[in-house]
This record gives sequence, structure tokens and C-alpha cells, in this order.
Amino acid sequence: MHRYLPMTLIAALTLSACQPPSVPEVSAPQRPAFTLTTDEAYDFSVVEPYADDHQAVYDYIDAHEFDHVAAIQRWLRQPSVSAQNDGVLEMAELLRGDLESIGFQEAELVPTDGHPGVWGYYDAGVEKTLVVYLMYDVQPVNPEDWQSPPFDAEIVDHKLGKVIMARGATNQKGPERAFLNALESIIAVDGKLPVNIMVAAEGEEELGSPHYHQVIDAYYDRLKTADGVLFPFNSQVPDGTINMILGVKGILYFEMTATGGDWGGPSKAEIHGSYKAIVDSPVWRLVKALSVLTSPDGNTILVPGYYDGIRPPTEEESQLINAGLEQMDDAHLQEILSVSRWVDDKTGADAVIELLYQPTLNIDGIWGGYTEEGVKTILPHTASAKVDSRLPPGLDPDEALAKIRAFLDASGFTDIEIRKLGGYPASQTSVDDPAVQAALSVVFKYANDVAVKPRVAGSAPFYQFTERLGLPLVPTGMGFGTGAHAPNEVMLIKPAEDVPVAGLAQIEKAYVDFIYALSE
Amino acid sequence: MHRYLPMTLIAALTLSACQPPSVPEVSAPQRPAFTLTTDEAYDFSVVEPYADDHQAVYDYIDAHEFDHVAAIQRWLRQPSVSAQNDGVLEMAELLRGDLESIGFQEAELVPTDGHPGVWGYYDAGVEKTLVVYLMYDVQPVNPEDWQSPPFDAEIVDHKLGKVIMARGATNQKGPERAFLNALESIIAVDGKLPVNIMVAAEGEEELGSPHYHQVIDAYYDRLKTADGVLFPFNSQVPDGTINMILGVKGILYFEMTATGGDWGGPSKAEIHGSYKAIVDSPVWRLVKALSVLTSPDGNTILVPGYYDGIRPPTEEESQLINAGLEQMDDAHLQEILSVSRWVDDKTGADAVIELLYQPTLNIDGIWGGYTEEGVKTILPHTASAKVDSRLPPGLDPDEALAKIRAFLDASGFTDIEIRKLGGYPASQTSVDDPAVQAALSVVFKYANDVAVKPRVAGSAPFYQFTERLGLPLVPTGMGFGTGAHAPNEVMLIKPAEDVPVAGLAQIEKAYVDFIYALSE
Repeated sequence: MHRYLPMTLIAALTLSACQPPSVPEVSAPQRPAFTLTTDEAYDFSVVEPYADDHQAVYDYIDAHEFDHVAAIQRWLRQPSVSAQNDGVLEMAELLRGDLESIGFQEAELVPTDGHPGVWGYYDAGVEKTLVVYLMYDVQPVNPEDWQSPPFDAEIVDHKLGKVIMARGATNQKGPERAFLNALESIIAVDGKLPVNIMVAAEGEEELGSPHYHQVIDAYYDRLKTADGVLFPFNSQVPDGTINMILGVKGILYFEMTATGGDWGGPSKAEIHGSYKAIVDSPVWRLVKALSVLTSPDGNTILVPGYYDGIRPPTEEESQLINAGLEQMDDAHLQEILSVSRWVDDKTGADAVIELLYQPTLNIDGIWGGYTEEGVKTILPHTASAKVDSRLPPGLDPDEALAKIRAFLDASGFTDIEIRKLGGYPASQTSVDDPAVQAALSVVFKYANDVAVKPRVAGSAPFYQFTERLGLPLVPTGMGFGTGAHAPNEVMLIKPAEDVPVAGLAQIEKAYVDFIYALSE
Repeated sequence: MHRYLPMTLIAALTLSACQPPSVPEVSAPQRPAFTLTTDEAYDFSVVEPYADDHQAVYDYIDAHEFDHVAAIQRWLRQPSVSAQNDGVLEMAELLRGDLESIGFQEAELVPTDGHPGVWGYYDAGVEKTLVVYLMYDVQPVNPEDWQSPPFDAEIVDHKLGKVIMARGATNQKGPERAFLNALESIIAVDGKLPVNIMVAAEGEEELGSPHYHQVIDAYYDRLKTADGVLFPFNSQVPDGTINMILGVKGILYFEMTATGGDWGGPSKAEIHGSYKAIVDSPVWRLVKALSVLTSPDGNTILVPGYYDGIRPPTEEESQLINAGLEQMDDAHLQEILSVSRWVDDKTGADAVIELLYQPTLNIDGIWGGYTEEGVKTILPHTASAKVDSRLPPGLDPDEALAKIRAFLDASGFTDIEIRKLGGYPASQTSVDDPAVQAALSVVFKYANDVAVKPRVAGSAPFYQFTERLGLPLVPTGMGFGTGAHAPNEVMLIKPAEDVPVAGLAQIEKAYVDFIYALSE
């Protein structure tokens, strides 16, 4: 059994011991240069593969494969685009009703200042309690970019086999409903679950989870008694490797807007473009304000102190990165993303270090003035950009925003309006935690190749559990999906013969094992 | 009779005799500093007010006021948004049919590589021939910004009196159809016109007139025999002053697009925003490419040589500016535009100089990535901006574009794609031309205050006549309108009692006088 740890997609790195993050210089702006501190790799041979079989439950799953696909399709055909408030409440009610049907004694919506959360409690009458984090919202879509309509959830042919294509197929309704299928199957065969389950779901993950703390608040004392948190997750890549992610970056999301005012520019409406000769332009204003934030290549953040607080990786993180370096495949990932090179032509460990330990300043969208076909000659009175910053541990979203505001002010851009749309800090769980070790034992039962990543470059509000509640969080599950936040999102349901990835039935069986492994 | 020349909106200036335009410096970029060369003002007392009356025609106009308003409404209710190809062909046919009904012996569509032109010829069997330039297209609209729907052409109450509110009301269908009403009235009363008329209309003025040269080409030899060109125009401001414009700036209009490619960035579709840590951003790329084009305040063009060829004003232009300086009212214009200050806090003659002699680089629109409500965390693969540059005489659109391209290349932005959407050079007519003097004699018959502007900051494809055909061009006409290229565009039809501006009947009577003045 191979136990090297491929790091195809995501990894982490160690801060060079005595090298503090440098303050960016105006003449030659630089990001801090992180390097690994140890050559040692984490030893996964100590993990014993999970040995039990639950054949009666497995058989039940095989017998109900079509019902279980249908249950996922039912979720995917219900739009729940949080950014556009499309179908969100209907999806919350669908989730709540499903928990009730499965046998949760408590299943209720949780009011927040935004979209509601959903709470469920299944009392198995035992000591061990697992919290399950679910997000029931999805990203917006451009239907014209899709091969099959994003809310039809059709089964379509894919080079890897049969897939369900829909917004949310893999991010995150597909694996989440697969997990509930596993719970249903255990109850159907064994009469009850071997652990208590608390479901704490939100409908605003794609908005940056601005109100999830209110869901946690409402059940804080009960959640604190749990033993660990599961985030159901399609963690395989097409070669069968299972990824396990122990940390996420935080995020800050805001809009920057320039509007005419005392500084100049039209303040109420667009004016004829010929006035540019004597009237300042809010669009130029936005372009210039954005431009001061980064180096000429757009890749180094020039906001003073932005890199100061970044926490160096622990010894454990360094070992996990080393354990996975062997399987770095930049070319493959670049092909998937249609990207010809990484920033500064970094590769291998250097690219992993950049990906996991650098904060970002990314323009998600920019708009102003006339953006349709053809010609319109106007001087717009306002222009805006959506900006997000991914935050490694040690960079707090509110501190980050304060530093950006202060730098804009110091650069003369006091008129630029900033509207915060969301933000939360990073999260980290230790590989040595019993819940992580239980998850590892299950995946090693089924797969040779397991990649344990100390962190991914993406974000999720896991700090609510790891930082606020002090609980370990394990995003785990077999299976494959792709296209999150993009057109043609899919989850693999029935792999082609030569594809070593779990199909839906296998995904559910592994969740069954995880529930039992945790109960022991 | 007062004959000072107020310059409320627009004016011109003289290049300081021995001060060549300076090449912008990187450290302290500067625009060339133009100053007036003479304190003398043009002497308008030599113009004799037009003395004849055509009472029978005036009476006919008064008797048909409602029909004439209805004719304008008919034109305005036919959308003709060239940028969106909305109703353009229908409007061309409407214009053609109207020419036929009025009595033009020739009235036909003129195929071009874009929207068709319209040609009309009225043979009066006389020596004198007037060309009438018409544009039958209009700017796009955002209907939600309008008080009355933009293609309803309703008569609404305005502080100045009864107005027609519609896209195209003043720019340019309103005054154009008023001119045709005048022709109809002369023919109805006198049996025929006293001059031959050639109509050379286009449907792409708002696109930068990319194919108008093909309309001119088709009738070049005949057009060349004419004596002058009229552009019907609501030239009054609310205090009754009549503006006469003898020149326009040229324009260059293009799109700049950044897309992922060999330089970096995703090339096919947006990717997850967290990859910003190792993937270059096309949106940042566009922001940086735009930013190098102008000084930090967005107001000085840093493209080498951009200011080099600007032609100094003639002695005549200087005199015309001086004649109008007395009536400069910056505060009033700033209030109309909702602008708190001009660039660099210039006022008076300094502002007029900037407005008329500086080229501009204006961002009409910018877009990329997610621009809807809420949060979407993507790294877009492409971003674009629409840019226009207003060109004073001496700055050719193709040369300007070549300089911008060369500067982007030299700055490392060879990947930035430029798509030219239109462009043409500036135009100038002399105040001493007989056609201009005829127009002046008519306006001095009706108004005390006449402002003759050597140039405006806006653009029109008048170079086709002045530069290609060697004909004088006079944009003239009484009446008031506002809101061109903006919401709530109106033309004043029936002024309130204390408003010293011509209503529709008066506008048409002045056109009648102009036709007869020209025939003498």
C-alpha cells in the first residue's frame, strides 16, 4: 500500500525560521519569502486501516442506488443562490424536512439576520456526538455557459463516467446529500445511528458566512459538548487519490466604489464624455485607487503591514507538506485551469508555498459606465470593484480591511467608499486529533493514495468550530467532483471501468464506516 | 442690440505663440499650457440682421403647430439605437418616406457596411444648393432612469415650459424634423423651395460614424457642387442666447481587453478566486495597463507625443473666444452637470482653453468578472474597458491609436488587445464664410445674444464636409434642448411666458429665413 501523499491541488509550507515578513518597498515591492523548515515527512504508516465491514448496510445502499441519486437530484433541482436570494428559503425547508424524514428528533430553521440556518439533532442515546457542518447555498450561474442547464441536474456522460451536472453538484449539495443517504441506510438496517448527530447548516457560505455565528450562538452550549465536526466532501482526484484538508484560509470580501464629489467628477449621473477635458473621472479614480494597492504585476500587496502577522507553519504542517511534495504536478493543474504559468514562474514546493501562505488581493469583478455592445460616449459618475483577500492564519479580516482603508486614505483616496460584504479568519485542525485519525483509518481502507493537506487556498467558515468551539474539523468523503464556482459543475456518480474513483454507492459506504469508526 | 458673445458651455483658445507642447515627464506629467494670443474680440457689428419677412409661411407654420409636433413625436417614438441595432432600419425608412412626401425627387437608402445612410435630393432648378447633414440614430437608454419612457415622446411640464421628452428629442431628431417642417411649409405656401437641397443622412453618428464616408463616396461629385452644409441644431440656452459652433473635436473610440495567455492568467474561463496566490489576474492586468496611460489624477495623458501635433488656434479663433469670455459661467455649468470643480480648479478662460484644446482619454465603461449583487469569488479570465479620446485639430485618430499601442507595448503590455470601434478627425469652418454669415444674419434678426464658438469639445463627423469636400458647415437653429447622452432628454416646444427661448413655431420660422437668406 502506497502511502505517499500527492499534493496535486493544494498544499502548505513553512516560514523560514529567522526571516520575518518584509515590509514591501516602493521601488521593488516584495512578498515575504517562505521556505520549508524541515525535510522530514509525516509518517502515515502509524494509521491502521479501518477493519470492520457493515455488509448489510452496504447491501442496502447498493439496492437503493437509484433512490439515492434521485435524492441528490431533488436537492440540485432546487436553486439556492444566496447572492441572488433565488430559492434559498425553499432549500432550507427541503433540508429541514429531509432531516425530519430521516429521523432527527429536532429539525428546525434557525433565524439569522440573513438567510436562515438549519439545525438538526439525532439523539442516539450514546456518549459520542458528531457535528455535521452543511452549507445549502450555491454560487450564481451564467446559464448560457452550461452544457446542460445548471438546475436540471441531468445525468450526463463525462470522460470519467456518468456524472450529475448542476450548480452545487460537488460544492456542496452532492456529497452532503450522499452523507444523509448513508445515515438513512444505517437507520434502515440497524435501527439507529451509533453516534448522536448535530447538524448545523447555513445558507450563506457563498456570501462569506456573514451570519453563521448566529447559528452557532443559538446552540453554542450543546455544540461545545461534541467530539468533532464533519464536512462531507468529494475528496478524490481522478487518479483515485484522496485529499484530506486540515485547514482553510480566511477571507475578506468588499466593494470599492468611486463616485464624483468634492474631489471632482460628476456626482449624480453620467455626463457627456467630451467634458473629460475639464471634469475628473470616477472610473479613472477607481483604476488609480486599485492600482496603488498592488505592484505593477498585480501580485504583491503594497498595503503597509499586510504581510506582518502571518503565522509561520507548525512543525506538523511542514511534515505534511513534505509528505506530499512527491506528487506535485503543476502542468496538470495548469492544464485544468487553462493557465500557462504560475506567478513568477514558481513551480513545485515554491508554488505550494505561495498558494498556501500568501494572502491575496483579487478583483472578482469590476464595472462602471457603458458596458454593452458598441459605442456610448459618457463620463460615468461612479464605478465599482468587488475585491477579495484570502487570509492565511495570523491575518485577521478586520485588521486587513483597516490596513487597506488606512493606505487608501494615506494615498489620498479618502473619497473611495469601501463596503464590507463578508469576512472571517483562517482555521486549522491537527492531524493527530482522534476524529482525523478515524477519518484517515477509513480512507486508508479503500485507497492507496491519501494526501493530507495542512491547508487549502480556499476558504470556509471552519473557524466557528476550530477557534470558537475548540472542536477538530474533518472535511472528508470519497468521490470526485469539479467545476465549483464555474460552469458545468459535476459530481461523478458511476465511474467508467478504468477510473479508480468511488461512485455514489462507494462514497456512501465510506461515510457509513466513518460513522462507526468514530463511535468506537 | 447687445452683441457680446456669451460662452456658457463651450469655447476655444489660442496656443501661446512660442510654447511647443511639452513631452510628458514621468516625474511630473504635464499637459501643454495654452494661452490666448490676442485681446481683440471679433466684431459682430458688421453682420446685418436678416430683414425680410415671409409672413404667409409664418402663418402656415402657426396654423399647423400641432401637426408639426406630431411629426416630431412620430420620429421620436421610433427607436433607432445604433449601438444595439434597435429600430435603425425602420427609422431610415421613416426618414426616406418623409423626404418623398415632402417632395424630394430622390429619396433612397444608401447601403454601407453598417447601418444604411439616406440620400435625398430636392431640385429647385436654381443655382444655389444646400447640403443638409442629418443623423437619424440615437444613444442607448436605461429606461429606469427616465421620468417618462424614452420612446413615448410625451409632452411633459418642465420649468422652462412644455417639452417633448424622449431619446433623440434634442440630439438630434427634434431639430432635424423641425427643419423638415419648415421645408414643408415653404413648399405648401410658395410652391417650391428657393434652393436645391441635398440630404446626406447617416444612422451611425453615435457609433463614431464608421461608415459615413461611404455615404459621401456615393454622391461625392454632386455634393462637391454645393455651397454649404447645414446641421439643424437647437442652439439656444435658457437665457435665450444662441450658440453657433464652427468646429468640433475629432474622436477615437476603442476597447482595451486583457485576457489570460502566455503572460499568465486563466485563458479560457474564470477560475476559483483562491488561485490568485499563484495565478496572474487579467483584471489587475487591465487596471495596470489603463493606469500607465494617465497621470495619477487621470487627467494628463502619458502616451509619448500625444500632445505634439495639436494645431495652435488661428487669429480668428482667438478673437471669437475673446468675444465670448464675458459670459463664462462656470458655476452654472457645474450645477447642470453636478460637478463641484473643474480639473485643477481652472475657471474662466483657463477652463475654456482646457475644454477646447486638450485631447482627452476617457473611460466610457469598464467591466470584468462578477458584477451582480453579493459575493462571488472568482478570478476572471478577461476584462475590458471602452475608451474614447477627443481630438483637437492636429491629432489624427489613427496616429493617436498607434501612439497608444506603441506605449502599451513599450510598457510591457503587448498582450493587451485593442479593438478600434470608430474615429475621425476634427473639423473647422471660418466665421467669414457666406453660409455662416447668412446664418448669423438670421439669428441676429431674432436674438440679441449670439455666441459664436470656434469649436466645441464634442465630436461630429463634419470633417467629411469641411476636409473632404471643402464645404463650410453651419450647425444652426433656434430652440433649446438638454439631456443628450443622458436620461430625460428633452426639446422645448412651448416656452413659459418669461422664457426668452424660441418654441417650435419660432424655430421653424428661423429655418425658413435661413433658406431664403442662403438663396440670395
